[in-house]
Amino acid sequence: MGDPFDDLNPPPRLMMGPGPINADPRVERAMAMPLLGQFDPAFTEYMNEVMALYRGVFQTENRWTLLVDGTARAGIEACLVSMIEPGDVVLVPIFGRFGHLMCEISRRCGADVRSIETDWGTVFPLERIEAAIKQHQPKVVAMVHGDTSTTMAQPLDGVGAICRAHDALLYCDATATLSGMDLPVDAWQIDAVSAGLQKCLAGPPGSAPVTVNARVEAKVLRRKHIEQGIAPPDAEPGDGPIIRSNYLDLPMLMDYWSEKRLNHHTEATSMLYAARECARIALKEGLPARFARHAVASRAMTAGLRAMGLALFGDQANKMANVTGVVIPEVVEGEAVRSGLLEDFGIEIGTSFGPLAGKIWRIGTMGYNCRKQNVLLCLGALEATLRRNGFTAPAGAGVDAAMAVYDEDGG
Amino acid sequence: MGDPFDDLNPPPRLMMGPGPINADPRVERAMAMPLLGQFDPAFTEYMNEVMALYRGVFQTENRWTLLVDGTARAGIEACLVSMIEPGDVVLVPIFGRFGHLMCEISRRCGADVRSIETDWGTVFPLERIEAAIKQHQPKVVAMVHGDTSTTMAQPLDGVGAICRAHDALLYCDATATLSGMDLPVDAWQIDAVSAGLQKCLAGPPGSAPVTVNARVEAKVLRRKHIEQGIAPPDAEPGDGPIIRSNYLDLPMLMDYWSEKRLNHHTEATSMLYAARECARIALKEGLPARFARHAVASRAMTAGLRAMGLALFGDQANKMANVTGVVIPEVVEGEAVRSGLLEDFGIEIGTSFGPLAGKIWRIGTMGYNCRKQNVLLCLGALEATLRRNGFTAPAGAGVDAAMAVYDEDGG
Repeated sequence: MGDPFDDLNPPPRLMMGPGPINADPRVERAMAMPLLGQFDPAFTEYMNEVMALYRGVFQTENRWTLLVDGTARAGIEACLVSMIEPGDVVLVPIFGRFGHLMCEISRRCGADVRSIETDWGTVFPLERIEAAIKQHQPKVVAMVHGDTSTTMAQPLDGVGAICRAHDALLYCDATATLSGMDLPVDAWQIDAVSAGLQKCLAGPPGSAPVTVNARVEAKVLRRKHIEQGIAPPDAEPGDGPIIRSNYLDLPMLMDYWSEKRLNHHTEATSMLYAARECARIALKEGLPARFARHAVASRAMTAGLRAMGLALFGDQANKMANVTGVVIPEVVEGEAVRSGLLEDFGIEIGTSFGPLAGKIWRIGTMGYNCRKQNVLLCLGALEATLRRNGFTAPAGAGVDAAMAVYDEDGG
Repeated sequence: MGDPFDDLNPPPRLMMGPGPINADPRVERAMAMPLLGQFDPAFTEYMNEVMALYRGVFQTENRWTLLVDGTARAGIEACLVSMIEPGDVVLVPIFGRFGHLMCEISRRCGADVRSIETDWGTVFPLERIEAAIKQHQPKVVAMVHGDTSTTMAQPLDGVGAICRAHDALLYCDATATLSGMDLPVDAWQIDAVSAGLQKCLAGPPGSAPVTVNARVEAKVLRRKHIEQGIAPPDAEPGDGPIIRSNYLDLPMLMDYWSEKRLNHHTEATSMLYAARECARIALKEGLPARFARHAVASRAMTAGLRAMGLALFGDQANKMANVTGVVIPEVVEGEAVRSGLLEDFGIEIGTSFGPLAGKIWRIGTMGYNCRKQNVLLCLGALEATLRRNGFTAPAGAGVDAAMAVYDEDGG
C-alpha cells in the first residue's frame, strides 16, 4: 500500500472502458466550488435548476425529475423499492448482467419476479416482450436500455405502449446510455428512468438522475409515510405498504425536492454541482449533436477494429453507440493486452463478466472521451500492444479506417 | 428560478449552522482531481488507503472500515438494514430527532422497535439504558452520539460493555461528532459506527464512512447472498434472511472493498478523493488537537452568547462540542434574525425542528469553520443583527468574552 499521507496524485489515464470515463474538466472544476447550506436560497435554486436541466436531458415534462444521492445503482433501487409493493409481479427481460441486477433488486423488494432471457449479444423483439407481459401480467416491467456487459441496446420504442395496454409500469435503467443514445422518455411512455453521471454524461460516479411520471407518483404516494420525528401531528400515512427503505423513499425525496423542502438527507452539494454541470454541457451541445457524436465514434471504432482483423461481439444492428465489444483473438491473453495498454499507454479498456469473461474486451467511446483523437489513439495503441502479444494486424489499418469514417462524416 | 445555463457561482457563505459547513479548500481541490477506473490499481490502492485512514479516525482496528456511497443517512441505513433481521428487537434511546430516525429506519428493516425517551435537551444516565436493555433484551441497540437537533451528546462509554453482557450489538450514529469529539470505537466496544463528511470532517455531504467489527461481520455474513449475475455457480448463500437492500448490503460492500474486488456499485471516485483528504487532514492535525480545538471554540462561543445576555439550551454538561443551542429571545422573530445574518453578513446559522422549532437557533463551530476568527465574526454579526431586531446586548460583550476564552487558552 502507498503512504495514505501522500498527496492525492492520480496517474493520467485515458479511460476507454465501459465507464467510468474521464470527467469533463468543467465538471471537475464545478466540484471544487464552495459549498452552500442545504436550505440556502441559492442552493435550493440550484436544486430547481437541476430539475429543469434533467427534464431536458430526459426529454420529459415530468415534474419529479431529481437526483438520488448515490451511484447509478442507488437510482435503480430508489425506483424499484418505491414502485414495487411486496408480492407484486415484476417482469424483467434479461439480455445481460444488468438484467440480472434488476431481478436481484426486485426480489429484495419483495417482488414475485418473472424473467425472460435471450443470448448475451442479442436483444428482444418487441413481440417477445409483449407475449411475456400478456402471460405474466406484471405490475412493473424493469428493463435495461444499454447493458454494458454485452454492449447491446434494447430498442424501447413501443414497450411503453404495451405496458400501458396491460396496466403495467415501465421502469428503465438508462445509466449507460443517457445523453449518448436517444431516449425520449415521454414520447416512448417510459414511466420511470434512472441513470448515473459517469458514462455519456461525462461526470463522476456518485449521483443518480431519476425521473418518474404521474403514474408512478400515484402509486408511490399511496405508500407515503412521513418520517417519525419530522411528521406533523396530523400527518396521514398512505394506505399502501410502507417503502422498505428510508434513504431511497421516492415520496420523501419528492417532499425534499418540492417547495415543501421537508428535510430528508442532506443533499450532496458537490455532486449536485457536478450533475448540474454535466446536464448544462450536454444541453448546450444539444442532444441530437451529442447522439451523432456518439454514433460516428461507434462507426469509426468498429471500422478500425474490423480493419485490424478483429471480430466484433454481438448483434451489430443493436449495439450501443458508446461501447463496443471485441472478441479477444485466440492467440493473445486478454488481460496481458489490457495491462500493456494501461502500463505503456495509460489507456484503460474493459474486461467482461459472466459468460463473456475472458472472451471479449469492451471499448468505450462516451461522454468527454467520445472524440476522434481518442478513437485514433486507442486504435493505434491497441495495434502496437496486440503486436507485442502475438497478434499482428495490418500496419496502420485500424487508424486509417477510423480516420476514413471521420473524413466521410466531415469531421 | 435563475438561468440554469448560467455559470455555477455560489455566493460566499460562512456556514455556522449544524452542518453542512464550509469544506476545507484542500478537500474541494481533491474533488477536482482526474478520475480513475474503479479497478485501476492506482484507484484500488486509494481505496485501501481510505480504509487505513478511517481506522485512525474511528480509533479502531476493524478490518471493515469503508465508505458507503451516499450521505450520512445511507451509512446509517447500510448498518441497520444489514444488522437487523426482520423480527429482531431493536432498542433506541431517543433524545432528539435522530433517535426518531433510528426507529423509523429500524422499523422499515422489519425490526420490533422498542424505545425510551428523555426530554429534548437532556441525555440518558447509563443506568436507564442498562435497565431498558435488561427489560427488552434487544438484538441491536441503536444510538446517536451527538444529536444536532438538541445539541446534546450522549455519553457512550460503558454502553458497549452493557450490550456485550446482554448479547446485543451496539450501533452508533456519529455523523455529527466524528473527529470533533472523542469516540474511541474499540475502547468503548461499539460494534458499528457510521458518519458523514459534512460536519467535523470538513468535507461535502455525500460519502458515509462506516466501521463494523467482527461481531457485526459474523451476523451479516450469515445473510450474504452474492448477487445474481456475478455469483459463481458454486456460490453458497448464507443461511440468514437476505438483506433487504442491494445497494446498502454490507457483505457485498465488503467483497468490493476486499482483495476480491467483487463488482458491486461503481465507487464514487471524487467523493472518495474527498473522504481521503478529510481523514488525512484530520489525522495530520491529530485527534487530540482536533478535539481540543472544538472544545475551546465551544467554550468561547457559549461564553460570548452568555455575555450577550442570551440563554443557552439544554444540559450544558452534555452539550456537543461543535453545536450550541441558543434560546431565541422573546422580543425577536427567529427567522428574521437568521435572514439578516445571511443577507447582511453572509453567515448561516441553524433553525430547529419538532418541539424546538422557533424556540432555539443552533450555531455550529466545527471542522474547517471551528476557529477563533469565525467565533468572533459570528458573535459580532449576531450582536448587530439582534440590535436591528429589537434585542440589545451589551455592546462588544460577546466578542470580548469569547476573546478572553481564547486568551486563557493561549490563543
